[in-house]
Amino acid sequence: MTEPTVLVDADQERDVIAAVLQRHGASREPAVVQASWLVEADLRGQSSHGIARLPMLVARIQAGLLVPDAVATMNWRRDSVLSVDGARGFGPVVAQQALEIGATRAQTTGIALIAISNSNHLGILAPYVENVAAKGLICIALTTSEALVHPWGGRDAMVGTNPLAIAVPADPSPFVLDMATGQISMGKIIHYSQIGRSLEPGWAVDGEGEPTTDPQAALGGSISPFGGPKGFALGLAFEVLVGSLTNSALGRDVHGTLDAEEVCNKGDVFVCIDQTVVTGVPRSDEVSKYLNDVRSTPAVAGSAGVRIPGERAASERARRTTSGVEVALTSWEAAVDLAGGVDASGMNLDPLGSFVVRDQSPGS
Amino acid sequence: MTEPTVLVDADQERDVIAAVLQRHGASREPAVVQASWLVEADLRGQSSHGIARLPMLVARIQAGLLVPDAVATMNWRRDSVLSVDGARGFGPVVAQQALEIGATRAQTTGIALIAISNSNHLGILAPYVENVAAKGLICIALTTSEALVHPWGGRDAMVGTNPLAIAVPADPSPFVLDMATGQISMGKIIHYSQIGRSLEPGWAVDGEGEPTTDPQAALGGSISPFGGPKGFALGLAFEVLVGSLTNSALGRDVHGTLDAEEVCNKGDVFVCIDQTVVTGVPRSDEVSKYLNDVRSTPAVAGSAGVRIPGERAASERARRTTSGVEVALTSWEAAVDLAGGVDASGMNLDPLGSFVVRDQSPGS
Repeated sequence: MTEPTVLVDADQERDVIAAVLQRHGASREPAVVQASWLVEADLRGQSSHGIARLPMLVARIQAGLLVPDAVATMNWRRDSVLSVDGARGFGPVVAQQALEIGATRAQTTGIALIAISNSNHLGILAPYVENVAAKGLICIALTTSEALVHPWGGRDAMVGTNPLAIAVPADPSPFVLDMATGQISMGKIIHYSQIGRSLEPGWAVDGEGEPTTDPQAALGGSISPFGGPKGFALGLAFEVLVGSLTNSALGRDVHGTLDAEEVCNKGDVFVCIDQTVVTGVPRSDEVSKYLNDVRSTPAVAGSAGVRIPGERAASERARRTTSGVEVALTSWEAAVDLAGGVDASGMNLDPLGSFVVRDQSPGS
Repeated sequence: MTEPTVLVDADQERDVIAAVLQRHGASREPAVVQASWLVEADLRGQSSHGIARLPMLVARIQAGLLVPDAVATMNWRRDSVLSVDGARGFGPVVAQQALEIGATRAQTTGIALIAISNSNHLGILAPYVENVAAKGLICIALTTSEALVHPWGGRDAMVGTNPLAIAVPADPSPFVLDMATGQISMGKIIHYSQIGRSLEPGWAVDGEGEPTTDPQAALGGSISPFGGPKGFALGLAFEVLVGSLTNSALGRDVHGTLDAEEVCNKGDVFVCIDQTVVTGVPRSDEVSKYLNDVRSTPAVAGSAGVRIPGERAASERARRTTSGVEVALTSWEAAVDLAGGVDASGMNLDPLGSFVVRDQSPGS
């Protein structure tokens, strides 16, 4: 069973999403930033964080839970500590504004901690840390989410999927880690449910807390932590760390990244570090050499070789930037509809002319 | 097959280790700090980081690779950035000194980053972050090690076991995570080898990079990352993060925590954060309540219930503080021997009177 997709140019996707957001009250600049974050996810093959999220963003705007032109309050509590009230703004807009001034500050102070509350869903984390690494700085990102992951040994969801991203400058491109602490995303479970595919054992449990490979049952249950008790411990540590640093909600009290009924009360934490301030010398050459050594490790049978984190996303991004982004036909039609139809945005979109409808095989 | 053990009082173990270190050139205070770190590991059931490490410490002192009374250089590069040259000192001594001033600074600045190089093995991480949390601060610890872990999909060890510790203030005791990014420790493989027990599948590979459950074969091979590709990505991220922030060696160039031939060239990174500075309000009540909720999650069949990270170590520690520490007879005899015999330390040790020789079943 396959899902019909359309092939869209990334710039065109960005324009349509931005048009939708502008049509629903956003000014051009925040609309483009938020649109870019959804497009980045689709470009990297993380479709659960791509254009599929647009209708929810619109519903949240309409419900007053997301304020498109919110003015965030940035409070330097100390030289290296920035506390941010996102004023219900777009997650990427608030975070990018905070990271701009946080990274600049870190170039003077060596380190800047950014703690954000009252902001909406960040989307994928990698672009935030990449943008900071492009300035030659290390960046670490943590964010919480609704409780979707069960504790190791427990039956009910109590912990967010709590992803971590880390970028460290290297050549020709920075090292970029971006991973959630759950085995899979809820988006993937939804996708498997839609295409009638079974989950792999160990990915999820049902509503009774029993292991299941049935995506429908998993939708009423919870995601398993990656890596057993260690992965659970890590996700839980991030939950209390972010919750403490942002005064945000914890566990089952977290809402607003997957619904259109509640204010988003999770937290986001970023740390920017200028490594040359810490050590006095740049270090990216040695990091680059080491990563090459790791990449060259003899591969086990059946493996295409050792993959450095972030490289798969980068190659996916490069491919789709050239060849176009496959998005679910339903998501695209919803976006065009929200934009007011093919021409309503004033951009003279011509979907039937520019798009190729394809069958995308599951997991490809 | 079992390993003979002796039951030792923790204070007595500390005194014997300190006596050994004093006999080999350490002043009383650093000797006690280093001794306490080995005892803490044995108290928590992490015997691979306990008294078993003492002969290596002595050998390193004798080789001039560990300088017992080293005077570390602490350099505040910025208000929140402390760069430390450990001058080949004891890992715990250098780190504790740095954390004392780092935590105090963080109470003013909100955050302090500590980057340590040229220091010896830290031992277990949990006590460092616990000590900082006892002052009401969040603490994060990262350290690198010799390359013992193979990349996901690769055959050779290229990454350290790179542990992470995180403490977040809570009541009645802080949340404490302390985990390595390998499936198991090399100490555990050595232990299984000694007692003739098979490893579990997925823990390690042999010298050819093929999966093995034979501990002897694993000793010539490498440890698998925990949690598959995500655990590998995490360990690799910590390697380049710590390597960048401390100008320390990377991958196979790291030496000196498991040998007596090389200067220790790994790095240690700590971050102390005063959460009340960041948010303006204490947060430990909410964290404590949430942890209680997680602890109360209905347990899966066959599970004794959800365990919060650090609780098992705390209960092990409490039990052994009362009932005594089981240490391998060979390790104890080596320590007493290094102290110059039962009376040579001047402490009138009476091991045959105080110790109970027991058979400790594997894994108990």
